[in-house]
Amino acid sequence: MKIIKWKVISSELALTANIFRYVKVKSQSPTNGQIGNFDVVQCMNWVNVIGITKDQKIILIKQYRHGTEEVTVEIPGGAANFNEDPKLGAIRELREETGYTSTNWKHLGRVDANPAFMNNQCDTYLALDCEKTHEQEFDPFEEIEVYLKDVKDLPGMVASGEITHSIVIAALYLYSISSK
Amino acid sequence: MKIIKWKVISSELALTANIFRYVKVKSQSPTNGQIGNFDVVQCMNWVNVIGITKDQKIILIKQYRHGTEEVTVEIPGGAANFNEDPKLGAIRELREETGYTSTNWKHLGRVDANPAFMNNQCDTYLALDCEKTHEQEFDPFEEIEVYLKDVKDLPGMVASGEITHSIVIAALYLYSISSK
Repeated sequence: MKIIKWKVISSELALTANIFRYVKVKSQSPTNGQIGNFDVVQCMNWVNVIGITKDQKIILIKQYRHGTEEVTVEIPGGAANFNEDPKLGAIRELREETGYTSTNWKHLGRVDANPAFMNNQCDTYLALDCEKTHEQEFDPFEEIEVYLKDVKDLPGMVASGEITHSIVIAALYLYSISSK
Repeated sequence: MKIIKWKVISSELALTANIFRYVKVKSQSPTNGQIGNFDVVQCMNWVNVIGITKDQKIILIKQYRHGTEEVTVEIPGGAANFNEDPKLGAIRELREETGYTSTNWKHLGRVDANPAFMNNQCDTYLALDCEKTHEQEFDPFEEIEVYLKDVKDLPGMVASGEITHSIVIAALYLYSISSK
């Protein structure tokens, strides 16, 4: 079976929330003509940063997350501003959330948040030779603890369930294959 | 800064869509007492399957995805039924989406879809010695192409952007660290 794109017949903005828009999409299969209604959640694009210090430690953050009502271990990141170069968003999020900066940046990859029903992407950047040069600057309602771990501890932290955020784990995979 | 859980003050169901519920949550920081309003998207839990044949090929699928309006390369998976053992969901999704089955299953891990604003988890299972024993059985609106790739090709498929689904890439990371 050869898969080709469906034809979007109509798209209706059903709701605008704080951080997403809910769009009802009606689309038609080019294969058999069937028409279906699909939920689409539209979000800003996101950026993630693998920040590594000169002594090969990764910069991790702890935050309370309202989706799961848990404190999670993640890497710095957040929503890119509208029309912002994602690299500038990555530089900003690393500095604001952790106080670390770098002059040695590399793009590791772009992934889809969840193509099944979300429209947005997440860019992951690698920042090498990171140094603590600033104080943290929090957005409203942000509370972030910063700490360092040896990069060699990362696989164990994922295997044990200490790191659970799928998009963070995807970023770690991009990092692991880039460093081979 | 020590991060502890916020206190949920109220939780209001704002909208029920086909595949998610939108809940408006009001929570209070235990650190400084500030109160904020947060978007939470509630979804069913998901399951993903790394299906490997006896000759070390992984079972991949192509689907049209309504969120990004693109044809994507993924692994078999989907939403678990309500209160379903996720392993049974994984066995079902592998068989229905691909026609492959296995008698050699292992749980690779559980990740959060996106703890920032989603409440659900995704379980990833490894199915070894997979064999094509059934015909595909599609859910309404499903159209799925199945094909096999050498497992050693996976890092290159992620690096090149051929595989872009963050939760699929997270599953591949769980697989890569489990097989070391």
